[in-house]
Amino acid sequence: MGTIITLTTDFGLSDGYIAAVKGVILSINPRVTIIDITHQIPPQNINQAAFVLNAAYKYFPPQTIHLVVVDPGVGTKRRAIILKTPRFYFVAPDNGLLSYVIHNYSSSTEISSKLEAVAITNPKYWLNPVSRTFHGRDIFAPVSAHLSLSVPMKEFGETISSVTILPLAEIRTETDGSIIGQVIHIDGFGNLVTNIKEADLPPGKLVVTIGNRRIPGLSPNYAQGEKLMALIGSSGYLEIAVREGSAASYLNTAIGSEVKVKINTHERD
Amino acid sequence: MGTIITLTTDFGLSDGYIAAVKGVILSINPRVTIIDITHQIPPQNINQAAFVLNAAYKYFPPQTIHLVVVDPGVGTKRRAIILKTPRFYFVAPDNGLLSYVIHNYSSSTEISSKLEAVAITNPKYWLNPVSRTFHGRDIFAPVSAHLSLSVPMKEFGETISSVTILPLAEIRTETDGSIIGQVIHIDGFGNLVTNIKEADLPPGKLVVTIGNRRIPGLSPNYAQGEKLMALIGSSGYLEIAVREGSAASYLNTAIGSEVKVKINTHERD
Amino acid sequence: MGTIITLTTDFGLSDGYIAAVKGVILSINPRVTIIDITHQIPPQNINQAAFVLNAAYKYFPPQTIHLVVVDPGVGTKRRAIILKTPRFYFVAPDNGLLSYVIHNYSSSTEISSKLEAVAITNPKYWLNPVSRTFHGRDIFAPVSAHLSLSVPMKEFGETISSVTILPLAEIRTETDGSIIGQVIHIDGFGNLVTNIKEADLPPGKLVVTIGNRRIPGLSPNYAQGEKLMALIGSSGYLEIAVREGSAASYLNTAIGSEVKVKINTHERD
Repeated sequence: MGTIITLTTDFGLSDGYIAAVKGVILSINPRVTIIDITHQIPPQNINQAAFVLNAAYKYFPPQTIHLVVVDPGVGTKRRAIILKTPRFYFVAPDNGLLSYVIHNYSSSTEISSKLEAVAITNPKYWLNPVSRTFHGRDIFAPVSAHLSLSVPMKEFGETISSVTILPLAEIRTETDGSIIGQVIHIDGFGNLVTNIKEADLPPGKLVVTIGNRRIPGLSPNYAQGEKLMALIGSSGYLEIAVREGSAASYLNTAIGSEVKVKINTHERD
Repeated sequence: MGTIITLTTDFGLSDGYIAAVKGVILSINPRVTIIDITHQIPPQNINQAAFVLNAAYKYFPPQTIHLVVVDPGVGTKRRAIILKTPRFYFVAPDNGLLSYVIHNYSSSTEISSKLEAVAITNPKYWLNPVSRTFHGRDIFAPVSAHLSLSVPMKEFGETISSVTILPLAEIRTETDGSIIGQVIHIDGFGNLVTNIKEADLPPGKLVVTIGNRRIPGLSPNYAQGEKLMALIGSSGYLEIAVREGSAASYLNTAIGSEVKVKINTHERD
Repeated sequence: MGTIITLTTDFGLSDGYIAAVKGVILSINPRVTIIDITHQIPPQNINQAAFVLNAAYKYFPPQTIHLVVVDPGVGTKRRAIILKTPRFYFVAPDNGLLSYVIHNYSSSTEISSKLEAVAITNPKYWLNPVSRTFHGRDIFAPVSAHLSLSVPMKEFGETISSVTILPLAEIRTETDGSIIGQVIHIDGFGNLVTNIKEADLPPGKLVVTIGNRRIPGLSPNYAQGEKLMALIGSSGYLEIAVREGSAASYLNTAIGSEVKVKINTHERD
C-alpha cells in the first residue's frame, strides 16, 4: 500500500503507449500510485533520460519503483534489469539509463556493495505473449507492478554483477586551476546545465566562459543577475541562464558546448 | 473502490479544460483513479481518437470507464452515449469515436448481443447549468463519475440499438494475393501504422511497397532491420519504420498513403 | 484523507522538475491525490497562469489545495503566501498569480472578510537546505503537503492583510452602449477568449467587431455558427472562434487585441 511507480520514457503523449503501460500496471496492482517523470525524452536519447531521471528520483519516498524505458534495442539481446539501491528500485533496459544512479554509488560498472541487480529473465511475471517491439508494456510494466506487490527481486531473474554505464562527460582541471566542463542538459526554460558541480568550483571570485562570452561572478538566483548569468541550479550543477529568457536561444548553444570556470584575477566585482 | 476512469480528448495540456473535467469527477467520486490516455488528439480529429483509444483501452482492468471527448458537434443534436462491452464502459459523443471498439464485436452499426448502449438524456446526473460548448465538463464528466459509483446504466437514459460508426479504412486483396492497405496512424516516433493486421498477411516471403520504396521481408524489431523496415508493431498491425529515426519524415508520408504487401516471388532473402 | 493538491506551473513536461515537486509532496503525505492543471504556462507568464487557474479551480472539491508556481522572482524578497477562500487553499509566490481568485471576492488588494492569508516564513515546513532557484520543490511543495495533513495555516507564518494583484484588463462602456474589451487568452483550439462576460453584454441583437471583421449575432455553439463566429464560452466569457479551425491563426490575432460589442441597429438576422 502506498507504493509509487514513476515512469520516464520517450513515448510522447500523443499515442496510447504510455496509457497501455499504466493499464497493465493497474491491472496487476490497482492500489499503486503512478507518477510521470517525463515522456518527452527525445526518441532513443538515453543520455537525456539518464540525466532527467537523476534530477528527480531522489525526491520520492523510500521504496519507490522507478520504471525507465528508452529502448532502441528492444527485441534484441540487450538485457533488462532491476537495480536496487538503499532507497529505491529501478526497472529498465540495461543500456546505460541508470548511469547517473549507479555513479552515485560506484565509479565502475561493477555493482558496489550498496547495490543489487538482477537480469529480468523469468517470463512468469511478463504479459503473454510478449511483443517484439513494446517491452515497456509487455515486460517492464508487469515486472514493476509485481515488484510493487513485494515479489522478491530474485524471483525475476539471476543476480548480475555489472551493468552498462555510459561514459559520462567528465570535467577536467587545468594547471592554472581552471575547470573545463560542458553543457549536458538544456531545460525547458532554455537554461544550460553543465556537468560542473558546486563542489568542483575553485574558491574565490570566478569568471565563467562559454563560446566568446565571459560571465563574471555567480548570480544568487535567476532574477538578480545580469541578463546573461551563471549560477548554481537546483540540482547543484553550474548553469548558464538568461534573465526571463532562454540562454539556449540567446547563445545558440547545443548540448556538448564547452564551459570554462577560472579564477578571476584581473577584476574585482 | 478501485474504479478507474481514463480520459481521451483533444483538449490539449495548456488550458484548464482537462483539469476542470477531473475536478468535476473527483467532486462526485473522490476515490476514483483518473488516468490520461491522451489529450493531444489533433482538434476535432475523431478518427485519430478512435485509433489511439483502441490501442490502449484493452490493457485496463475490467470495469474501467473510458471517457472519450472529441466533440465538434457539442451543443447540437448529436447524441451522447454510454456503451458497455463485456469488460468496459465507454462514455462519449455518438460521433464515431467508438468505431474500433464496436468493430471488435460487430461489423455493423447495430449493437451486437455482447454490447449494451444508452443515450445520455437524464439531466439528473449532469452539472447544472449545462454550458452549450463544454459537455466534457458538464455532462460526460459527471455521468462517468456517477457510473463509477455504480449508478445503473439505464438511469442515464434509454437503451439504443445502433450507434454511429465511421467507415474504417478496409484492406483489399488483389487477384495475385497481394494486400492493399493504407497508413492509418503516425505515432510519436514517426512510425507508420497501417490497417493491415498480422493475420491478413499472406504466408511466405513478403515485400512491402510504399510510394516508390520497396521493403523486402519483415524485421523482427526496430533495431535489427535495414534503415527502412517493415515490421509487426505492438498493436498487431504492419508498420513501416526507420531505425532510430522517423519514417514519416524520411518518406514524407501522410495518413492515407497506400501500402502494398505482395508475395516475393523474385527474390530470396 | 481524500485531499487533493492541484499544480499549475511553467515547468514544462520535458524535465524532472515537476516530478521532483510531486516526489516531495508524496514523501510528506503519501495519501494525497495530485492533479495537474497545466505545466505549459509560457515561462514567467503570470497573467496566463492566473487566467488558466481561474478557469479550473472552482470545479475541484472543497478543501482542495491549489499550488501555483510561476516564479520569476524566486530567491528575491518577493513573498510566498497561503490564501484561504471559503472553499479552497492556494499556495503561491505573491506576484499576482491569485489575482482572479481574489478578484472573485474583493475589488482591492486588501484581503476581504471572506479570505485569509499568511506569508510563508516558518522554515520548519520547508526542505532543508532550500535552494535559491527552486522554491517550487523546496518550499511550496512541502508547505502544500503539510497543509494537506491539516497543519493549521498560521503555523506557516504571520497573517497578512493585502496581497499583490495584477491590473486585470477592464472592459469599458461607450456612450452608445457599446462594450470595448480585449482578447485575454488564446486556448489550445485557437479560440480567442475575451474579458467580456455574458452579464456585460447589452440586451438585443449584437454585432462583435475584431480588427476589420464584423460578426453579427452570437452562435449557440462551435458547430452551428458561420465559419467565423462569436459565442459565450464555457467559462462565461465572450469568445471568437472558427468552425473546426483556429480563430487565432485565421485572424492572426494576439493577446491584447481589442474586441467591440455593439447593439446591431442596422440589420435584422
